[in-house]
Amino acid sequence: MILEVAILDVRPGETGRFEEAFRQASPLIARQPGYHRHELRPCAESDHRYLLLAWWDSVEAHTEGFRRSAEYERWRELLHPFYDPFPTVEHYLPPVVSGP
Amino acid sequence: MILEVAILDVRPGETGRFEEAFRQASPLIARQPGYHRHELRPCAESDHRYLLLAWWDSVEAHTEGFRRSAEYERWRELLHPFYDPFPTVEHYLPPVVSGP
Repeated sequence: MILEVAILDVRPGETGRFEEAFRQASPLIARQPGYHRHELRPCAESDHRYLLLAWWDSVEAHTEGFRRSAEYERWRELLHPFYDPFPTVEHYLPPVVSGP
Repeated sequence: MILEVAILDVRPGETGRFEEAFRQASPLIARQPGYHRHELRPCAESDHRYLLLAWWDSVEAHTEGFRRSAEYERWRELLHPFYDPFPTVEHYLPPVVSGP
């Protein structure tokens, strides 16, 4: 399983509305083929930064599947207006080391 | 549980030795109080970038506990020479939204 990782910087003062929009948007990603799970975590060091993690079967399930889906249009409408700057999204392969 | 997140850029050409050093270093973090688990994942988009995720009871378990421990000295010796640039480490609080 691969991991999509995005650090999301949200316009200061709009974090409450962003979290609400993200709650609304969550079913859009959760119904995609190849999707496993996702989570949105607030940063301990910055009050308007978040981490999005999403676990997928493959990079393509995210980039070819979700990003070309009808649901992605709605996802974008709901969430992209909150980001400043627009986030970089990366994908990470299965762990080469893990513990315990 | 909180999540420590670090994007690790390793000197190109040294990734094999880095992975081996990380394997050696793993027991040092795994025996810390408040540690739950960790993983090191290679980036799909860059051949010398990694993601370190570590789950802790609290931010302090990492920053006050591990970083002031004797094990951290050895961790640093093993791993820090590989990083260029030196990574920023952030902590993320428990999820505010997750799915499915």
